[in-house]
Amino acid sequence: MAAMAQCPFLSLDGVDGCGKTTQCRLLAEWLRSQGRQVVEVADPGGTAVGQVIRELLLGHREDIDVYCEALLFMASRAQLLAEAIRPALARGQVVISDRYLLANVVYQGHAGGLDVDELWRIGLWATRGLLPDLTLVLDVPIEHAARRRRGGTDRLERRGPDFQQRVRAGFLAEAQRRPDSIRVIDATGSVVDVQARIQAEVCRVLAAGARP
Amino acid sequence: MAAMAQCPFLSLDGVDGCGKTTQCRLLAEWLRSQGRQVVEVADPGGTAVGQVIRELLLGHREDIDVYCEALLFMASRAQLLAEAIRPALARGQVVISDRYLLANVVYQGHAGGLDVDELWRIGLWATRGLLPDLTLVLDVPIEHAARRRRGGTDRLERRGPDFQQRVRAGFLAEAQRRPDSIRVIDATGSVVDVQARIQAEVCRVLAAGARP
Repeated sequence: MAAMAQCPFLSLDGVDGCGKTTQCRLLAEWLRSQGRQVVEVADPGGTAVGQVIRELLLGHREDIDVYCEALLFMASRAQLLAEAIRPALARGQVVISDRYLLANVVYQGHAGGLDVDELWRIGLWATRGLLPDLTLVLDVPIEHAARRRRGGTDRLERRGPDFQQRVRAGFLAEAQRRPDSIRVIDATGSVVDVQARIQAEVCRVLAAGARP
Repeated sequence: MAAMAQCPFLSLDGVDGCGKTTQCRLLAEWLRSQGRQVVEVADPGGTAVGQVIRELLLGHREDIDVYCEALLFMASRAQLLAEAIRPALARGQVVISDRYLLANVVYQGHAGGLDVDELWRIGLWATRGLLPDLTLVLDVPIEHAARRRRGGTDRLERRGPDFQQRVRAGFLAEAQRRPDSIRVIDATGSVVDVQARIQAEVCRVLAAGARP
């Protein structure tokens, strides 16, 4: 990735209901308004194969084993990388991913009980080491996120406040472990205010020109 | 697994068209005729989640990335283990699996180009270290297997003779590396003769009483 400044790989993540899907869209619009080509992807999903996996993961099957779940996310991401992310970066486009490996580490590791370092290790193998230059964790209190979800009903969102609390703590812990590539954004306040904070962080990556 | 002699975990594997599905069935019938309770499973598949994964893997999508493919097999197996294999062994039943982790190592590693040791490592993690007490590789020349398949048309079977040759060589190499748990069976000759060779190997595991 020689031309990092020209084509950063960005990811937004956080607890369900943190507002990241809206913020991904606004970030893409802002980058396009600056004349950049932007590819938006969603993880899991984003490919025909990934869509089948996404439906399996987020659907109505209550009985998916946590190892199976972790590996399905890894599989979907491997396909997304091969089919969409790597080609886009090679074309010099900015990639914005709505979640990525960090979510896998946090949801199945910190919150789900699987070994966190093992998930990073398998995830690095599955992505051939291609991680976002910058991941922004949109942090909100879980009560706040629960209101914003308006009782979202997919399988992963129904896991209750204890699970969501472990997810939030997991994101914050990983951001502390990897301050160069994962930044926490205060995602309380208006959509416009949060987007301004996101843009400020992205500007620093665009200016830096290379992974620290 | 204290009562290994009472409930061995067996797997049959080999190139496509080696006859393992027929031999799995005959082995199960023979063990049942001796008063044992036997659970037969197929990997990938064997669960509702695994069936969706199996259809994705064996279906008509030509474009599955090899990392994605490897991880989908791993995911299906994790579910099969949690839902079927471990409960059956805990009930004191013999488990016969039509393929298992070895196939993943051989097809995506030896034949597909992924790192073989990494596949073993991820596979051991995904199965919580639960490997078959005995895996029997049914070995036949690939021309022989191709005739037996009668031009099988699933996605993995269509990969051509070079790929199948690497698969066969991979199975033989892994059997050499792990002679205590993987045995090669000459699977040329009549179905009855091959089954007799399989039963002779299984008798040794039943008599041994514990993993070597």
